[in-house]
Amino acid sequence: MTQASPQRLGAIALACLVEPGTAGVAELVAEHGAEEVLARLRGQGSAARVVGRILPEQVPEMLAEMSRRGVRVVLPGEPEFPSQLLDLAEPPLALWIRGPLDLRAAALRSVAVVGARACTAYGERATAAVAGGLAEDGWAVVSGGAFGIDAAAHRAALAVVGPTVAVLACGVDVAYPRAHDALLARIADAGLVVSELPPGSQPLKHRFLARNRVIAALSRGTVVVEAARRSGAMATASRALEIGRVVMAVPGPVTSMASSGTNRLLHEQVARAVSDSAEVASLLTGPGSLGGDPGLQVGTRDGTHPAALDGLTDEARTVLGALPSRGTRTVEAAAERAGISPAACLAHLGLLEIVGLARRVGPGWRRCA
Amino acid sequence: MTQASPQRLGAIALACLVEPGTAGVAELVAEHGAEEVLARLRGQGSAARVVGRILPEQVPEMLAEMSRRGVRVVLPGEPEFPSQLLDLAEPPLALWIRGPLDLRAAALRSVAVVGARACTAYGERATAAVAGGLAEDGWAVVSGGAFGIDAAAHRAALAVVGPTVAVLACGVDVAYPRAHDALLARIADAGLVVSELPPGSQPLKHRFLARNRVIAALSRGTVVVEAARRSGAMATASRALEIGRVVMAVPGPVTSMASSGTNRLLHEQVARAVSDSAEVASLLTGPGSLGGDPGLQVGTRDGTHPAALDGLTDEARTVLGALPSRGTRTVEAAAERAGISPAACLAHLGLLEIVGLARRVGPGWRRCA
Repeated sequence: MTQASPQRLGAIALACLVEPGTAGVAELVAEHGAEEVLARLRGQGSAARVVGRILPEQVPEMLAEMSRRGVRVVLPGEPEFPSQLLDLAEPPLALWIRGPLDLRAAALRSVAVVGARACTAYGERATAAVAGGLAEDGWAVVSGGAFGIDAAAHRAALAVVGPTVAVLACGVDVAYPRAHDALLARIADAGLVVSELPPGSQPLKHRFLARNRVIAALSRGTVVVEAARRSGAMATASRALEIGRVVMAVPGPVTSMASSGTNRLLHEQVARAVSDSAEVASLLTGPGSLGGDPGLQVGTRDGTHPAALDGLTDEARTVLGALPSRGTRTVEAAAERAGISPAACLAHLGLLEIVGLARRVGPGWRRCA
Repeated sequence: MTQASPQRLGAIALACLVEPGTAGVAELVAEHGAEEVLARLRGQGSAARVVGRILPEQVPEMLAEMSRRGVRVVLPGEPEFPSQLLDLAEPPLALWIRGPLDLRAAALRSVAVVGARACTAYGERATAAVAGGLAEDGWAVVSGGAFGIDAAAHRAALAVVGPTVAVLACGVDVAYPRAHDALLARIADAGLVVSELPPGSQPLKHRFLARNRVIAALSRGTVVVEAARRSGAMATASRALEIGRVVMAVPGPVTSMASSGTNRLLHEQVARAVSDSAEVASLLTGPGSLGGDPGLQVGTRDGTHPAALDGLTDEARTVLGALPSRGTRTVEAAAERAGISPAACLAHLGLLEIVGLARRVGPGWRRCA
């Protein structure tokens, strides 16, 4: 964990104070620093909607308590903070995180899979196929932890021991929806549970829309599986489009209300139609790929990657060290050697693959020359 | 019927001789005239695949016999020949037609609705909704008279007493498939059965591909409802695309093989997704419409249409005369007044609407000022 400098404590206290998605705060922080902005907000009756009040001097105790409960916080510019979140007009001031993966590494090769709470059996099947296939290939499946398509996406990733990230509209320690208590615990065990709201925050209505922008920005692309015309998933697609992410939709029966939004996205040519995980992956990485990777500026695929090693976290280096340069090693064997979970290992392998340092060969992986 | 000049008899005899879709024949005819081409083809062992041999002097008797059986023939340049067929590299040399509608008028406002023979219940429902809605609005529904989607499209149009056109890969007097004997008879009674093959021709395999190009060219756009990846309907979509027609596909479950071709068309952005007849109509006529109308060069929508009346057939003028300039009249009432069938009347009304001479008001129609 980064040293708790006064600046960091001030930034965390500020993040606890300001409602997610509030316009202009990031600019103020960039210009004046978090401590100054915090002082101003506290000094005067501020217009900014506030989340929770905490003094900078109380932050260390809060962080210690959170640490005991397995929750860490990362700020913009810190190693685990995904730089592509800065594509947002109102980037998160902080992210609270539970789980064993590295968020930045996971986000570099991630896809949001979102959709209706009231989904159909078809939507669940399609989600399982798309999200499962992507997770199996090391793509982190990002979703919102809600009922319906979200839950199906997380479960599909967990089922293949692939990386998955739940971005919540409440604190990472709040079980919402309550029926997803166990699911969120499994995600926190094997993947990541993330929120820009401080622990203890409740899921208020406007926070879902703010949360959707984080899902959109965190991922290289967003797949909408089933959605009615006016729905949160459509809002996520819209935010993804605004910041230049690839928006995809799974076609569905035109006779199904649950596919009315997705089919509309296709009709309006807002979204590309995707029928399986291979089509998603090809849009994000294939020749003529639509997906820029704003976070990926290390290494190249042609074998010349002087900067690649510099961009790696310590854990990613450990995974790289766990790969043979001849023959191959399975994800499980590499994970054991690296001393991390298979899901975390797979997320790193996905990243190492796109920066050209690792290669999948049949069922195993090898280090690139 | 046009006077049977020697040129016309020669052109018909030539059309009976050459296999549909044979490259280069139209150019030869344009350069040397049908009689000369016919003489050359008969004079030497020709490379052109031949359909049926008939001498020009035998044509009048054949036409008389066909006329008794309700079959007429139209040649390029004649009033009923749809000029947009000339967009094809190998336009038909002649069209044999059964049915009460005017083919050129019907084609001006027509949509091809095609798809798999082995369709699903979903495909049938979607076809009924799309084709029925279009036909109800006066669009001629063009298809191939085959099992599955084709039949559902024709039936949906007939059910709403709307115009429909079956383009066959055999003679218009040949019941193929045999089980569609009654369906084809109904289409010939209320709509049109069309073929470029002379009466009596059998549905040989290669003739289906040649036929598909006519379906594509005859229509302003092609809707593929359900199709496997390699199928006749996909070939029709491909021909439609080649000649700049709008290609549309109805999204379907990604779990259904019957939708694998249509969803692929959407993924590849070859086709626009359409969920109902309104979306089809908007792509063909709406603001920013994709569909050029190569055959429509009469009149404008802004009320200035000096040429519009000139471009009308006698029957269309009669229908126009059957409309009130104040108040409205139903299709049925206008049809009775004009002395034609409601389906024929609706086809004319659709045409009169796009040239700006008639307007739909609620359930009725009125003449424009």
